[in-house]
Amino acid sequence: MLIVQKYGGTSVGTVERIHAVARRCVQTQREGHQVVVVASAMSGETNRLIGLARQVSPDPNERELDALVATGEQQSVALLAMAIRDQGAVAQSYTGGQIRLVTDNAFTKARIRSIDEEMIRSRLRQGEILVIAGFQGVDPEGNVTTLGRGGSDTTAVAVAAALKADRCDIYTDVDGVYTADPNVVSGARKIDRISYEEMLELASLGAKVLQLRSVELALKYKVPLRVVSSFDGPGVDPQGTLVCEEDAMMEKVLVTGVSHSKSDARITVRAVPDKPGVAARLFGALAEANISVDVIVQTASVDHRTDLSFTVPRSDHAKALKLSGEVATAVGASGVESDERIGKVSIVGAGMRSHAGVAAQMFDLLAREGVNIQMISTSEIKVSCVIDEKYTELAVRALHDGFGLGKAA
Amino acid sequence: MLIVQKYGGTSVGTVERIHAVARRCVQTQREGHQVVVVASAMSGETNRLIGLARQVSPDPNERELDALVATGEQQSVALLAMAIRDQGAVAQSYTGGQIRLVTDNAFTKARIRSIDEEMIRSRLRQGEILVIAGFQGVDPEGNVTTLGRGGSDTTAVAVAAALKADRCDIYTDVDGVYTADPNVVSGARKIDRISYEEMLELASLGAKVLQLRSVELALKYKVPLRVVSSFDGPGVDPQGTLVCEEDAMMEKVLVTGVSHSKSDARITVRAVPDKPGVAARLFGALAEANISVDVIVQTASVDHRTDLSFTVPRSDHAKALKLSGEVATAVGASGVESDERIGKVSIVGAGMRSHAGVAAQMFDLLAREGVNIQMISTSEIKVSCVIDEKYTELAVRALHDGFGLGKAA
Repeated sequence: MLIVQKYGGTSVGTVERIHAVARRCVQTQREGHQVVVVASAMSGETNRLIGLARQVSPDPNERELDALVATGEQQSVALLAMAIRDQGAVAQSYTGGQIRLVTDNAFTKARIRSIDEEMIRSRLRQGEILVIAGFQGVDPEGNVTTLGRGGSDTTAVAVAAALKADRCDIYTDVDGVYTADPNVVSGARKIDRISYEEMLELASLGAKVLQLRSVELALKYKVPLRVVSSFDGPGVDPQGTLVCEEDAMMEKVLVTGVSHSKSDARITVRAVPDKPGVAARLFGALAEANISVDVIVQTASVDHRTDLSFTVPRSDHAKALKLSGEVATAVGASGVESDERIGKVSIVGAGMRSHAGVAAQMFDLLAREGVNIQMISTSEIKVSCVIDEKYTELAVRALHDGFGLGKAA
Repeated sequence: MLIVQKYGGTSVGTVERIHAVARRCVQTQREGHQVVVVASAMSGETNRLIGLARQVSPDPNERELDALVATGEQQSVALLAMAIRDQGAVAQSYTGGQIRLVTDNAFTKARIRSIDEEMIRSRLRQGEILVIAGFQGVDPEGNVTTLGRGGSDTTAVAVAAALKADRCDIYTDVDGVYTADPNVVSGARKIDRISYEEMLELASLGAKVLQLRSVELALKYKVPLRVVSSFDGPGVDPQGTLVCEEDAMMEKVLVTGVSHSKSDARITVRAVPDKPGVAARLFGALAEANISVDVIVQTASVDHRTDLSFTVPRSDHAKALKLSGEVATAVGASGVESDERIGKVSIVGAGMRSHAGVAAQMFDLLAREGVNIQMISTSEIKVSCVIDEKYTELAVRALHDGFGLGKAA
């Protein structure tokens, strides 16, 4: 098999960890597989470099910032290649530029255009373990670019897709994707298999295991993705969680997991005139300011006026509130109010497609705990409710229990 | 004018120093010059990375070591470019690979083959300050290489040569080349102008201001080189020392400077059979082991036997002694002895070419201080004496005084 292994910052965070990762890479090759490794910077290094840049410049030039922080991965892959060679395997490190991982020129958040997969294949045929710097590429002019936070996952999946790899294993500090955050629900259970679509909903709803873009990319190119722990030990499942196409077995499960997030703020514009173009004007202004809007709810119109509520990232709250106030005045709405003390709980499951009543069951479970629902948003495979922030953990536990996601007693 | 400015590790060692360097670069441009900057890694960074590599591997692979340590310069030039931009100038950082500084593939000690000077020229014409990572290049396959310790000087001179720059300014933590080490001779005087050949002798004899290869390169391409302090302050001469072609003014000076070194060891092979091929065998064995031999002295033959003495770097002493012993046995010499407690003092001056008696005067000055001379080596423009290590400083002061090199009283 051709296997891409991705190791995060904590997995290569110390000299000892680098040796452990090297042993795993070599062992995988000795089991008869072709191995490509993608690594992040040693944990802390990226933040150290960004801190240095901010000391030098209040608003660091983004091209230079990318050139600077990309060195973190260049260091870790060089060290990892040394360690792998010391175990007797053939290995070389590569920067994004050296495997011709070409991106657009959107510095600090570049998108991948192409990879020189023929070069990688030819090295693999010679028995080499390639150790590729994650998170980085070069634009068509040869400037160093980076893919944004969590970009090493994206590099790994993109390399796996280009090579049509049999599997992309994402080694991290947890041993898989759970039915809920184990810090909130002690009985949360590791999920053995999950579909791309479900993982996408979980990733976008606040589960921090995989970066959203990497899951989108895996779905697009049908790359089987495995989330697995790079730390051995008692209670750690070496199988992790496999993210793959939906199959018959999965469909038996109604709800796969419960996710939650406390990083949003709600804004409500009161008594908006109910006429065409008003919503477009409001959300156009927010989009222009690069503020992503999540849940949007519009109440039924009364006297040709309606209330418009939506959520934005808490970090954009002040900016969004100011913009909304300007638009509200311009269109003749009566006023704007907002709340940062909101939480969002969501249930995700491919089984919802074929089963009615799941949303109703969710609302009932929350009502029984006395949790009031402020906003509701649904997709084919998820239902999200915005609630008072203080009830978030209570709601997660109630839903996890109510849908029977816990470990078998 | 087109000026290349090179800044060493201490010159970019802190955020404050980076800002000071940025101001100087921008000021030079505002005075009407085209400016190319070459920078080393922040002081301490290269050693930190090498230490990390040695923790990971007892004998780090050299390709990976180069990929690792080259990140130090990539970081400092990115930070410096940010700082220059903040002063309102146009600037970009470049790795060795990005200016197509192509070397051979002798990792950790690569030699430069070519530079894409047309790209640099075109950027300069657009008013850009180019900030180039010193010490590094890429081989024809695109692997990162480094030029060896002090390689940033070599990068700066190579770039200046490729561009036919009007001057290459080496900013460092001293304000020029001195007639002797000021730590040994309190009356040592800064030299205003010195010829390439003299500088070469001084550099190779232990003066640590400029890397030998950079002076060779400057001589070959006639690049006017200026050694100057990057620190302003009282007593610091902003003019530094100009290294250039010999001119009429210089020839008036008999001796330009006194240098010394305490990093050699002497090996003597006793009673070597005086027949062809013996010396070749001995020094061939040392050369094969990559040990550079400096002073060689052979005594006149007595009974077809001769004593052969030579100096090697102290760090290679043990290895050289073992090899010499093997060869001595094989050729039937009577034995080998060695001494680490030796010092070397040298006088350098282009004026020696046209003046006899300089060597004799040197020997006389040493004799008057009771310093016994163990070995002598001469070139057209220098005389070196190997002496007992403990007399080194005394000898330097005696020569400095005797040849009248001190400050005018």
